[in-house]
Amino acid sequence: MGALHEGHLSLVRQAAQENTDVFVSIYVNPTQFGMNEDLDSYPKTWDTDVKMLETVDNELASKPGSGRISAIFAPTTKTMYPTLPPSSEIPGKGSFVTITPLGTLLEGASRPVFFRGVATVCMKLFNIVKPDRVYFGQKDVQQTVVIRRMVQDFHIDTRVMIGATKREPDGLAMSLRNVYLGSRRRLVATVLSQALMAAEAQFKSGKRSRGDILWPANDVVDKKAMEQDSLPTEKRARFEVDYISLADPDTLEEVEEVDEEKGAILSGAIKMLPLESPQEGEDCGLGGGGGTVRLIDNIILKPGL
Amino acid sequence: MGALHEGHLSLVRQAAQENTDVFVSIYVNPTQFGMNEDLDSYPKTWDTDVKMLETVDNELASKPGSGRISAIFAPTTKTMYPTLPPSSEIPGKGSFVTITPLGTLLEGASRPVFFRGVATVCMKLFNIVKPDRVYFGQKDVQQTVVIRRMVQDFHIDTRVMIGATKREPDGLAMSLRNVYLGSRRRLVATVLSQALMAAEAQFKSGKRSRGDILWPANDVVDKKAMEQDSLPTEKRARFEVDYISLADPDTLEEVEEVDEEKGAILSGAIKMLPLESPQEGEDCGLGGGGGTVRLIDNIILKPGL
Repeated sequence: MGALHEGHLSLVRQAAQENTDVFVSIYVNPTQFGMNEDLDSYPKTWDTDVKMLETVDNELASKPGSGRISAIFAPTTKTMYPTLPPSSEIPGKGSFVTITPLGTLLEGASRPVFFRGVATVCMKLFNIVKPDRVYFGQKDVQQTVVIRRMVQDFHIDTRVMIGATKREPDGLAMSLRNVYLGSRRRLVATVLSQALMAAEAQFKSGKRSRGDILWPANDVVDKKAMEQDSLPTEKRARFEVDYISLADPDTLEEVEEVDEEKGAILSGAIKMLPLESPQEGEDCGLGGGGGTVRLIDNIILKPGL
Repeated sequence: MGALHEGHLSLVRQAAQENTDVFVSIYVNPTQFGMNEDLDSYPKTWDTDVKMLETVDNELASKPGSGRISAIFAPTTKTMYPTLPPSSEIPGKGSFVTITPLGTLLEGASRPVFFRGVATVCMKLFNIVKPDRVYFGQKDVQQTVVIRRMVQDFHIDTRVMIGATKREPDGLAMSLRNVYLGSRRRLVATVLSQALMAAEAQFKSGKRSRGDILWPANDVVDKKAMEQDSLPTEKRARFEVDYISLADPDTLEEVEEVDEEKGAILSGAIKMLPLESPQEGEDCGLGGGGGTVRLIDNIILKPGL
């Protein structure tokens, strides 16, 4: 989707370690945006993206035995959707891959066309490039589950590789969307990773039931929300929790007890609400702080930990 | 789908002429049957099918330069639908390819899951076999249009080849379903190909408007219907017309005027109604004549004719 950051580059480096030729696709896929979503305002950063990839490729050139970036695949929409204009409506016309119910849970609940768009464009990309391995970031964990399922169900001859989530030093997961936060919301946004880490600690200490694992996560967000609510408007950054989920790693259905053999996916989404009373000279982030910024994060609770 | 007849074998022969290795897939695909359709009663004819293919393969062996049947691919449903039981409901759970609006027109109007099932299973078969060319019969013309569209939209690296419809000497298109007719309905069933040929004759004589092309087709079916209605019940075979269509070859939308560059698809579907007053010793067809038998046929009106 372009707007590359360190998370994407780490996937490129991982791919170059495990393959001779790395193809990077950069394509802002219209079918994964809903009718009222931000396709038009989505940052197009082609020149910066190419420079970042050139820098990584130079770095790879000096590594003995490393693969290289052989191509950036940046197709037009007419190439990706050759016969009908791509539709962003659920009953829309077109050729689509749907993966249900996986694509309707969690992130799919608030974004009904999203995973249809992702699965559809990935099927096309895979058919065009015929990659031995495809690389996705763990940050978008539901996407990795949907793509793995698609590869399995459609017998696609590729291996799905997952790269670890890249984080800022304070734990915030790297994301394109972070640039919209500004400094005040940026500080509070760590609440999500902190909540998930609190739950992970419970799992690591041997807890397996939903209640035992999730209560500290809910406690972290509740306390942070109360703390922010009590601050004056020009100091606070309010947020809402969309969900904190403890789900089966294959079906993404909520679990009451973590299966020792399968582990679980701990994930969450919060909405950082528009900045209140922005101050003269304050860093309000790209877009001036007027919009809600939705953030997601997850931690995989591995079996046998 | 098994239950092989001369139409299938002609596709095998065509494939062997144009390729070194022919893979024949035999799989009765559950997702293309609706909830109330005839999946369970669908004929399973494995032994006969294999014998027929052996005979064709022996014939190919004696042809210099001909390809051979290298494999019959007859997967289990667990192979084709590895993660969830295949669903026959439109909102059903699973991993599906949908091609709309193509899959909702003509045959899709009365069979809403059919083309979803066809596109889904073909995508899987193509991924497993990775064929240079895939062969479909023109008899199921909408299927060929849906598959062509899928190949184009998803950039599938194969060529879609169409084999001409095989016909009985009196013009009836060969079909698995013909065995259900019995001799009385079998004679009347030629009305569909006769109607389409009457319309084709108009096109060949230079007519291009819908009305000019279709009236003789409608005339043929109307006259045949009246003729049958006037016969005593033990002699007649009544039928209903589902549709007679003159459609764009790419979009399958009905056309008022045939485009000189694109041509058109002339197609129709009729329902041969259950046999009335079956007589002692009468050949009533497989199933005894008690069921409706739906027949389809088509003729392609080629550009520049």
